[in-house]
Amino acid sequence: MNNSPIGVFDSGLGGLNVLKELIVELPNEKYIYLGDTKRFPYGQKSTESIIEIVKENIEFLIQKGVKIVVIACGTATSQALDVVKNLYDIPIIGIIEPTVLNLRERIEESNNMIGVIATKGTIRSCAWEKKISEYMPNAEIISEAAPLLATMAEEGWTNNKVAEYTVKEYMKIFKNVDKLILGCTHYPLFKELMQKELPHKTEIVDTGVELAKYLKKKISGYDLETSNTEIGGYEIYLTDVNEEFANSATGILSDYIDISQINKVEL
Amino acid sequence: MNNSPIGVFDSGLGGLNVLKELIVELPNEKYIYLGDTKRFPYGQKSTESIIEIVKENIEFLIQKGVKIVVIACGTATSQALDVVKNLYDIPIIGIIEPTVLNLRERIEESNNMIGVIATKGTIRSCAWEKKISEYMPNAEIISEAAPLLATMAEEGWTNNKVAEYTVKEYMKIFKNVDKLILGCTHYPLFKELMQKELPHKTEIVDTGVELAKYLKKKISGYDLETSNTEIGGYEIYLTDVNEEFANSATGILSDYIDISQINKVEL
Repeated sequence: MNNSPIGVFDSGLGGLNVLKELIVELPNEKYIYLGDTKRFPYGQKSTESIIEIVKENIEFLIQKGVKIVVIACGTATSQALDVVKNLYDIPIIGIIEPTVLNLRERIEESNNMIGVIATKGTIRSCAWEKKISEYMPNAEIISEAAPLLATMAEEGWTNNKVAEYTVKEYMKIFKNVDKLILGCTHYPLFKELMQKELPHKTEIVDTGVELAKYLKKKISGYDLETSNTEIGGYEIYLTDVNEEFANSATGILSDYIDISQINKVEL
Repeated sequence: MNNSPIGVFDSGLGGLNVLKELIVELPNEKYIYLGDTKRFPYGQKSTESIIEIVKENIEFLIQKGVKIVVIACGTATSQALDVVKNLYDIPIIGIIEPTVLNLRERIEESNNMIGVIATKGTIRSCAWEKKISEYMPNAEIISEAAPLLATMAEEGWTNNKVAEYTVKEYMKIFKNVDKLILGCTHYPLFKELMQKELPHKTEIVDTGVELAKYLKKKISGYDLETSNTEIGGYEIYLTDVNEEFANSATGILSDYIDISQINKVEL
């Protein structure tokens, strides 16, 4: 048992999709959310830069007293998790391994075709391909970089004509996949538009949902679950505060978030 | 007189729009073009990072023996030019001052309404606003950040539905401006789409055209013009080489560019 908060970070608001799912699965936990909006986007930064940034984010959360860090960002997971996970005394969890482990449990392994859509940095790292091949050696993998989607999400452009045509373009190569993994935590904001472009049989895999289910199963194994029986709640910290974020956060968390509730932090 | 080449750099292919105009105005000069595609986009990076990157780019061009450096990038000009221009023995020229000086010469100053569209970093720096206010104190300025356009240009998405709707969205606030300055060198690729959304009277100001005209007037003042009477030609260096760049470069320079003609450089 441990009543300290769980730390969650992302380059911007994508990680709120993960936070939302964590609150569903583990509502009594308290959360500290860090959105690194000043340094957004991570998707086209070098691996060295991402590792430095990820360390700073983790150290900020550790200073806030968290018992576990969730890297709620595909790019940061793919490029920095392996380097940073053994540097600290608390567990650091990313979005890739939990998603792949859950998938392996629930799909017929033979001949599955799995699509991965993510940022350029993530696709270049082949992190998804490596993990899928490790746990599901017979799966066929199709991957694509979608450099516009995360920026569109941060702009709040998730349901206009631009979003519609961008998604249509990016979905073209995924018409035959059984599962489409959203390898960037910003992408669930486009899930409905994506589903329209794909056959019914295609399951869109939201890494936030997968991570939250995984952590719910694992947290008692770490002996880190809270003894709190009330709703735990959350605090939001951003490296660059703007009104747009508050509006989008209100939409994602279905919880009215006023800009005055958002804390500014210098990293 | 000086027969050394002119160095031109950008975060990607946007600077090719500047190179094209330089070739029109100063065809006998030889050019070295550096596209920093590996570190693209600059638009959302911190000022400190941009200054470091700009120094590396300038030093690469100086090693190549250039007599002058053209910063063919709005973000790099707005955030680094003032810091780096006195660090080297050769002239360093950006896109902002030449554009504003040319504009002042050709417009009725009173009551002009000037729009500026650029990356987030450029808009945040207020570099255009400062320079316009300095030279044209009565001009009214409307500015807007357009974080999607440079990435769309690098993807080759300049003439599809996504581009069309994105431009439509960004043009909304510029319906009443007399001049619209394209504060990022990638944006001339969207000029036709923009013109469709704006009244006929609105002049779209291409910073590449302005810079080239300015340099043509100034180069003899620096005593740096070439004595060469043939076409000078150019060499292209990229920090990350990809097929898409060769295709786009062919389109921009109206000159067939094969990927084998592009040199890879590590910075």
